[in-house]
Amino acid sequence: MMTSKIAPRRLSIFGSTGSIGQNTLNVIDHLGGRDNFEISVLTGNGNVELLAQQAKSSGAQLAVIANDRHYESLKSELSGSGIAVAAGKSGLMEAADREADWVMAAIVGTAGLAPTLAAARRGADIALANKECLVSAGDLFIEAVKNGGGKLLPVDSEHNAIFQVLEENQRHAVERIILTASGGPFRTSSLEEMANVTVETARAHPRWSMGLKISIDSASLFNKALEMIEAKHLFGLRPEQVEVIVHPQSVIHSMVGYTDGSVLAQLGAPDMRTAIGYALSHPRRANLPIERLDFAKLARLDFEAPDEKRFPALRLARLAMTRGGVQGAVLNGAKEVALEAFIEGRLPFLAMAEITEKVMDDLIDLPAAATMDDVFAADKEARQRAAGLIR
Amino acid sequence: MMTSKIAPRRLSIFGSTGSIGQNTLNVIDHLGGRDNFEISVLTGNGNVELLAQQAKSSGAQLAVIANDRHYESLKSELSGSGIAVAAGKSGLMEAADREADWVMAAIVGTAGLAPTLAAARRGADIALANKECLVSAGDLFIEAVKNGGGKLLPVDSEHNAIFQVLEENQRHAVERIILTASGGPFRTSSLEEMANVTVETARAHPRWSMGLKISIDSASLFNKALEMIEAKHLFGLRPEQVEVIVHPQSVIHSMVGYTDGSVLAQLGAPDMRTAIGYALSHPRRANLPIERLDFAKLARLDFEAPDEKRFPALRLARLAMTRGGVQGAVLNGAKEVALEAFIEGRLPFLAMAEITEKVMDDLIDLPAAATMDDVFAADKEARQRAAGLIR
Repeated sequence: MMTSKIAPRRLSIFGSTGSIGQNTLNVIDHLGGRDNFEISVLTGNGNVELLAQQAKSSGAQLAVIANDRHYESLKSELSGSGIAVAAGKSGLMEAADREADWVMAAIVGTAGLAPTLAAARRGADIALANKECLVSAGDLFIEAVKNGGGKLLPVDSEHNAIFQVLEENQRHAVERIILTASGGPFRTSSLEEMANVTVETARAHPRWSMGLKISIDSASLFNKALEMIEAKHLFGLRPEQVEVIVHPQSVIHSMVGYTDGSVLAQLGAPDMRTAIGYALSHPRRANLPIERLDFAKLARLDFEAPDEKRFPALRLARLAMTRGGVQGAVLNGAKEVALEAFIEGRLPFLAMAEITEKVMDDLIDLPAAATMDDVFAADKEARQRAAGLIR
Repeated sequence: MMTSKIAPRRLSIFGSTGSIGQNTLNVIDHLGGRDNFEISVLTGNGNVELLAQQAKSSGAQLAVIANDRHYESLKSELSGSGIAVAAGKSGLMEAADREADWVMAAIVGTAGLAPTLAAARRGADIALANKECLVSAGDLFIEAVKNGGGKLLPVDSEHNAIFQVLEENQRHAVERIILTASGGPFRTSSLEEMANVTVETARAHPRWSMGLKISIDSASLFNKALEMIEAKHLFGLRPEQVEVIVHPQSVIHSMVGYTDGSVLAQLGAPDMRTAIGYALSHPRRANLPIERLDFAKLARLDFEAPDEKRFPALRLARLAMTRGGVQGAVLNGAKEVALEAFIEGRLPFLAMAEITEKVMDDLIDLPAAATMDDVFAADKEARQRAAGLIR
């Protein structure tokens, strides 16, 4: 009998202690764990205990804690394990430099930009969960992936859905993509009601449980605005090819419309392991213990046009896509500051979009980014302007 | 500038005067007509005038009228045109023997079996609209296509949808296919109401306008039963992998469920040119003037489990798939006779399935078909038995 033992693929998980990171390790276990994969690097932000435990049980070669105050603590947790330890920004760059065939890029925020870009330049396949890589630095990031030669595998459920039904050899026939949006907790609220919402009402998401900032971005549809910009870069679309439809059940994760009248859709249960598994096992679909859809039980799927009066974030996304340059970085930076101000009770809900739009208009003349530093500068400038406006 | 004029593909349309044939000619026109295609043969059943007109305007090389009483009439219509004329069964076999790269097989009923099988054996790509090829002679037909080396391109909207989202290199990961069914005019009727329905109420289909027999097969879900058997053969599935869900809006044309939890779906307006265009231009999607889906206007899609007490045809399809052999041919032959009896007022609506099941049980020991003659014999035997039972 012939045995054909193939070399395990080397994986790194940037952001392994967050929910995407944890789910990625779960999927790796389901797909054979150490028999099929070798873990190069795990990184976490501040959860030393979980990171150490993940590193030990997965047999990682390097564990990196982004918050360098935790360096000694991680070192002591992993002493004697043979697992190398690093911390801080330099630790993250060391993580990016370590050989890995596939990198889960799940570090949240602009902190994820540099290590993900470095891994892409090195030619690793990038399973992308970080939003800023495309929203703030789309042109540079896409170029880096292209030059590196690795694959870009979207992990966000909407983009993963599109990736699943965007046929590689039919790019000439793609007419539009249709991102689905749950509509959030204010889907049926009036503009007046939305003017007075609080953090407590905004954080209740109908389908997924998630962090506070993401919950509020879901309530304002700013999350969908970011996804529109991401989709444009990911799939090389014109702004007018990116549509959004409100679909409260979130069963259809997104769709692609073709020139022959066909619309292809990917549907599934709200379990991020489907998208992670698809990115990990691509191009071969895996077998995963995910709840199967029961259409009789679902009974109905609803759709409605998004109301851009109540959800101006969608209009701002189109502005950013049309204007190009660093407007995506500006939108994101200004929005982050406005979001924090809303959370702290210093800004009304609807003013988040007003502040963001004002900053985008103010910074319309910033030149396109030639380097990542230009992106960081635009982000910083946008944040300062937004903070000034809020004061 | 380089010009690369490629040789036009040669097409034949078996059944060009029916609605599928007419739509095929329409699609051919949209995709460049004579600049890109050469029409080898057109065949019709009895509509001489339309067949002659189609032959002349498309520049067909041969026109065949299946009903040979119309031979002289077709001949006179086409005299001086340079278009060859033939008629009857021998004419259809001549049609099948003529060189064509792609054949639309849209002759209705068992009459379509022999010419379609002959074209498949010759190696033409077969755009399949005839149901009997797979329902009655699935094993033989699939083998003929395989040996001939042409592609099998399903034109039925449900099978075409599955074909669109059944990824070629992911066959290992196909868990199930989900055929959608409009549910027909009796979707919400009680069993008692269905016992007394008439031809007039049964013929009203909510979405598509079609012929009388097909309308009644839609009302009894016998059309879906046939599609289940077809799907099993087309996609090489086990009987338990073929599911049916009632979806009254018929916007989702069918779906494929994968082992990673993903369900892929093809959606579209109720226009058979999407499927015909996909079959004609495969593997490259075409640009067609078909109504685009507007999800906000659709507003909702509903799903419910089919009730096999009221629609026993679905259970019979599973029986036929599980038993294999010529049970598909028997189901179809018996159903055809029962359907005619219902139309003529000699049989209640629900008795169509009773008769069919009785004949299937009676002929359970018929051996699998080694040749088409075995299929014809099983069909004939089933029809005779059904007629006897109805008397």
